[in-house]
Amino acid sequence: MNPKNNDILKTYVITTENAIDAVFSSDIAPETSVSEAMRYSLEAGGKRIRPSLVMEFCRVVSGDYKKSTDAAVAIEMIHTFSLIHDDLPCMDNDDFRRGKPSCHKQFSESTALLAGDALENLAFKVILASGYDDGIKSRLLSELSDATARMIDGQVKDLSFLERESVSERELLEMYSLKTCALIECSTVMGCICGGADETKIASAREYAHNLGLAFQIRDDILDIIGDEKELGKPIGSDADNQKITIASVMGIEKASELAEKYSNDALDKLESFENNDFLKDLTKSLLERYK
Amino acid sequence: MNPKNNDILKTYVITTENAIDAVFSSDIAPETSVSEAMRYSLEAGGKRIRPSLVMEFCRVVSGDYKKSTDAAVAIEMIHTFSLIHDDLPCMDNDDFRRGKPSCHKQFSESTALLAGDALENLAFKVILASGYDDGIKSRLLSELSDATARMIDGQVKDLSFLERESVSERELLEMYSLKTCALIECSTVMGCICGGADETKIASAREYAHNLGLAFQIRDDILDIIGDEKELGKPIGSDADNQKITIASVMGIEKASELAEKYSNDALDKLESFENNDFLKDLTKSLLERYK
Repeated sequence: MNPKNNDILKTYVITTENAIDAVFSSDIAPETSVSEAMRYSLEAGGKRIRPSLVMEFCRVVSGDYKKSTDAAVAIEMIHTFSLIHDDLPCMDNDDFRRGKPSCHKQFSESTALLAGDALENLAFKVILASGYDDGIKSRLLSELSDATARMIDGQVKDLSFLERESVSERELLEMYSLKTCALIECSTVMGCICGGADETKIASAREYAHNLGLAFQIRDDILDIIGDEKELGKPIGSDADNQKITIASVMGIEKASELAEKYSNDALDKLESFENNDFLKDLTKSLLERYK
Repeated sequence: MNPKNNDILKTYVITTENAIDAVFSSDIAPETSVSEAMRYSLEAGGKRIRPSLVMEFCRVVSGDYKKSTDAAVAIEMIHTFSLIHDDLPCMDNDDFRRGKPSCHKQFSESTALLAGDALENLAFKVILASGYDDGIKSRLLSELSDATARMIDGQVKDLSFLERESVSERELLEMYSLKTCALIECSTVMGCICGGADETKIASAREYAHNLGLAFQIRDDILDIIGDEKELGKPIGSDADNQKITIASVMGIEKASELAEKYSNDALDKLESFENNDFLKDLTKSLLERYK
């Protein structure tokens, strides 16, 4: 990304992390025995793509990203809850996440289970405690709960594929649409809602995010095969060790790369519906090209 | 309970179960690979105390219980999610629930984990998809998410006690206030909100529920020691097998019974704030006396 856009991204990351801190210093999330595990995973240094998308879409449609901070925090909490549960032994059984011990390794399985449960709930509390009016709250919460349901459906499908000999490209893309795209779509739509966008803009944002999510997931699969262990923070080929079928393993790396390229271009096309789309174009390219 | 009140209770149970069915036949919960596990646990035949309290409090303050059906379904979903996760091997490791295999035994650990996650989310979706106005939705969702956070905090405390040599009565009662009372309080308060009750009535309902919850949990602990395996549907002394410290094991059965009696009487006293409290008195007595 160019230096100006990189600074904007840093602002979004810092704003998100400060807002998460503020939640845990407030009545919204009183100190409990599971707070430490919740914060450990929230603060484990993700790329904050989802909250950044919330804030940037809010800025693009309204000029002010700060109106969307609570929605940004909420989506990051749902994302983190899903990672904590996804890493559990009965799921992907990953001991590391972003180069650090995963939540259940750092604490315990029961603590990780309950920290995930609590974060799922806290996301809703954050929106409910926000200054949005009741109508906006209902719309944001509906988007958030719909996306969470779709994401969980995607996780179930993902697991069910482990028991199968073969999975088609169509089935894998449908699963990615749920598991990966749901929260990314929700991020852009919540940003639009916070910024007061009309339905046409919301639909364009959703389509952009859908294409971005697919491109991102396919790149992630490719990276899992060819990537660099240090950069990713998890063992290379961990999906392969779990005998997980991915779009990269089904199509081969070359064809999968072409497909990712197609979705990237479709995502960039959708951004033409928005003025001041310079940051979003730069972010989209950087997300999708760093894996090349 | 007398026959008339028993009929009312049956109406509430049937209304709840029909409303749960209706959710799964609607767009609120589209069919997914985890729907079967969610419904298995929801339909496993609990006593439906929480939804019945929602509906009765709504009726007592407004004359019409049907206004509260969505809130009743939501609280039963949160309760069921908590039971599914509570039964998991990393938690209480219970193979049976209500005389049937627990969710992870019937399906798998990962399915049970995700079914619980999905039910936690679906509770919010049910309220969001209801006909309540946005202001009422926000109030109900705030109560629901506050109660869920407290319940999870209680589960964490409960687990932490397993690692300890001794736990005081005060600590146990505080844990029960969170783990058991939070959802019962939320039930009565949501019923009041759906029925348009004022803050004084809401405060009385909350106090009633707090005392009922403590009395109920202490009776449950006593029953775990002296109860009949067939009636409970889980092995006698399963808490003791897990070396779990309960108020009955700390105080002894006799003193614990006296304490439960005190909370029962306090609960009944609080019902004097409500007219037409005949059903609630009868329900309260039947809940607390069947374990004698």
